[in-house]
Amino acid sequence: MMSNLVPPHGGKLLPLLASGSQWENGIKEAEALLKVRLNSREVSDLIMLAMGAFSPLQGFMGKEDYQSVVAEMRLKSGLLWPIPITLSVSKEEAGKIKEGQRIALLNLDSDEIMASMLVQEKYTYDKRVEILKVFGTDDEQHPGVKKIYEQGEVYLGGPVKVFSEGGYPERFPEFARPAETRAIFTDKGWTTIAAFQTRNPLHRSHEYLTKIALEVCDGLLIHPIVGKLKAGDIPAEVRMECYKVLLDNYYPQDRVILKVYPMEMRYGGPREAILHAIIRQNFGCSHLIVGRDHAGVGSYYGPFDAQKIFDELSPGDLHIQPLKLDSTFWCQKCGSMASPKTCPHGDEDHLLISGTKLREMLTKGERPPEQFSRKEVMDILVKYYQGKIGSSR
Amino acid sequence: MMSNLVPPHGGKLLPLLASGSQWENGIKEAEALLKVRLNSREVSDLIMLAMGAFSPLQGFMGKEDYQSVVAEMRLKSGLLWPIPITLSVSKEEAGKIKEGQRIALLNLDSDEIMASMLVQEKYTYDKRVEILKVFGTDDEQHPGVKKIYEQGEVYLGGPVKVFSEGGYPERFPEFARPAETRAIFTDKGWTTIAAFQTRNPLHRSHEYLTKIALEVCDGLLIHPIVGKLKAGDIPAEVRMECYKVLLDNYYPQDRVILKVYPMEMRYGGPREAILHAIIRQNFGCSHLIVGRDHAGVGSYYGPFDAQKIFDELSPGDLHIQPLKLDSTFWCQKCGSMASPKTCPHGDEDHLLISGTKLREMLTKGERPPEQFSRKEVMDILVKYYQGKIGSSR
Repeated sequence: MMSNLVPPHGGKLLPLLASGSQWENGIKEAEALLKVRLNSREVSDLIMLAMGAFSPLQGFMGKEDYQSVVAEMRLKSGLLWPIPITLSVSKEEAGKIKEGQRIALLNLDSDEIMASMLVQEKYTYDKRVEILKVFGTDDEQHPGVKKIYEQGEVYLGGPVKVFSEGGYPERFPEFARPAETRAIFTDKGWTTIAAFQTRNPLHRSHEYLTKIALEVCDGLLIHPIVGKLKAGDIPAEVRMECYKVLLDNYYPQDRVILKVYPMEMRYGGPREAILHAIIRQNFGCSHLIVGRDHAGVGSYYGPFDAQKIFDELSPGDLHIQPLKLDSTFWCQKCGSMASPKTCPHGDEDHLLISGTKLREMLTKGERPPEQFSRKEVMDILVKYYQGKIGSSR
Repeated sequence: MMSNLVPPHGGKLLPLLASGSQWENGIKEAEALLKVRLNSREVSDLIMLAMGAFSPLQGFMGKEDYQSVVAEMRLKSGLLWPIPITLSVSKEEAGKIKEGQRIALLNLDSDEIMASMLVQEKYTYDKRVEILKVFGTDDEQHPGVKKIYEQGEVYLGGPVKVFSEGGYPERFPEFARPAETRAIFTDKGWTTIAAFQTRNPLHRSHEYLTKIALEVCDGLLIHPIVGKLKAGDIPAEVRMECYKVLLDNYYPQDRVILKVYPMEMRYGGPREAILHAIIRQNFGCSHLIVGRDHAGVGSYYGPFDAQKIFDELSPGDLHIQPLKLDSTFWCQKCGSMASPKTCPHGDEDHLLISGTKLREMLTKGERPPEQFSRKEVMDILVKYYQGKIGSSR
């Protein structure tokens, strides 16, 4: 079937997951290799590489790509790439590895060999330069910054062969690779697909964003991130329950796809928004919903920085487009969901509940008005906050 | 100030309204010329030409353009143009006019000289061919078809110099020419502007369409057509009251412009949707909201024919894009406005009131629920249907 989807970033999907005899021989070879343990972000990135979600990357970045990405948001080829995809080791570990050597990569908390890697380069880097350029702050309270400070002092760059998707396909029936979402979209005859990135349960405000997108696109991909989140975020399994009950009750079944991807949030605001866009382009989406403070945390970024950064790109940098939306709320005077773009009324007419207040209510078993969040979703979150479901993993 | 607006159709705005000494001399010359009286559609088209809203047309179409537009939806130059812009006279009148002669054009119902015209061509045409091609039906009940059957047998083609905008600027303070809306948009720094074509008061369903557009664009042009409508349609002055009270109460003042244009509806469905798009491109809009059965009447067109026709165009035919939306309604289960694209619930949950039923209610002084239409709008329409305002003109 002819596909009218946007092309993958760089032109071609390049999944790196081995199969068949390549897998068997690869694993066998890897058992004998020096082993390096990945941190949780690196595990997620490795699986993203395996899926082809980071196409056209073939592995962890070498020095030239790394430096160019940090400084210019581009690979040395000139292709747009906003955030380094790196593998760090301690100086001590690095001392045991030679350039040209093959190594095996171990999962975070098991002895599972996830991949083998040809170490083409071994290089030191300036953490502060990376942190300031990528995150725009060097505050260690920033969860993305903190992880860089905590990681090893030396980067290893080189191509990977991946043997495992780290249990994600088993843990999430909604796990899907870019080639698979592309096949679904093509099969449905969709051309314009909006992706909704989320790390939270969907309340009415989020639902409204997705429904604006659905009104103007052929289809919608609800695409939660299910890699490790920061403390206080709601576990993926609980969120999945929330997404499903919402989709079952409030969305046309034939126009919405729910799939997950295993990346870990960096909370990198504008630069992460671009990464989110590149990933969704690989998944076949024509639009990425970019709301207020997309991929932000705390008050490190201006509310629309993650929208404005797209205006600085050159034509052709991306084939996916940002669908720039504002913060949204129920307005009593409008009698509808609205945003500052559509509603002239003041805060006194808007139903606004802070995250802290909401958690308090739910913990006590109280539910906010249905104009704030669907009853079905609230039922699940009350159970979670009362400790009845969702032991963290 | 640099403008980032879409270019006018064909590249350049070409208003044809004379001013200063050109106007004085032109009028003087015209008084001595043979006079031809325009019908109401021709008056409207002449003013559209004068404003530059029909750019790049320089007058009423000659035979080659006419035939090419009817058959191919293109001017002989290849430029997209879906509906003939023509001046008809009876055979008797035509007998008095020679090619190369200048004539004066009189307003519908007065002796006002609106324009002079150099008759470059005088040609007969096949009404049935035009009607079938343009309207897709030859049913005389179709109001657009009927007017073609009623008009003269001979077309006059040639450039016009226009001396009058037929009282529209005086009658409507919201009358605006393309150069003026472009200046407003540029001044506001808008790049993406959605136009909403309307010939009706705005109920919640229309409001929702415009608010979807407002969520995704920089600004909104509410752009009612105020030329002659078919019997039963609500007079422009009454509609203007409805638009104003709605905008005053339910839209952010700085993101919406209300302007009118003097064309007459042809009720031509798909082809008229393209004409509406070309006009809005001339006015500087990047998007035209194309809803269900846009510019249709009765059941002559499929509900999405006016959207599908845009898919048949070639890249570059238009710089404006259709914003294709569905029919919308209040859904009780969703607790919001919705469409078949966003709502999975059945008609039993949807607040649907037919035009006939609404007229009955309003005539009796009854108001539909606020989820169907704003109270402020209903107040005006009750007065109108009870004969208290809006004597027709």
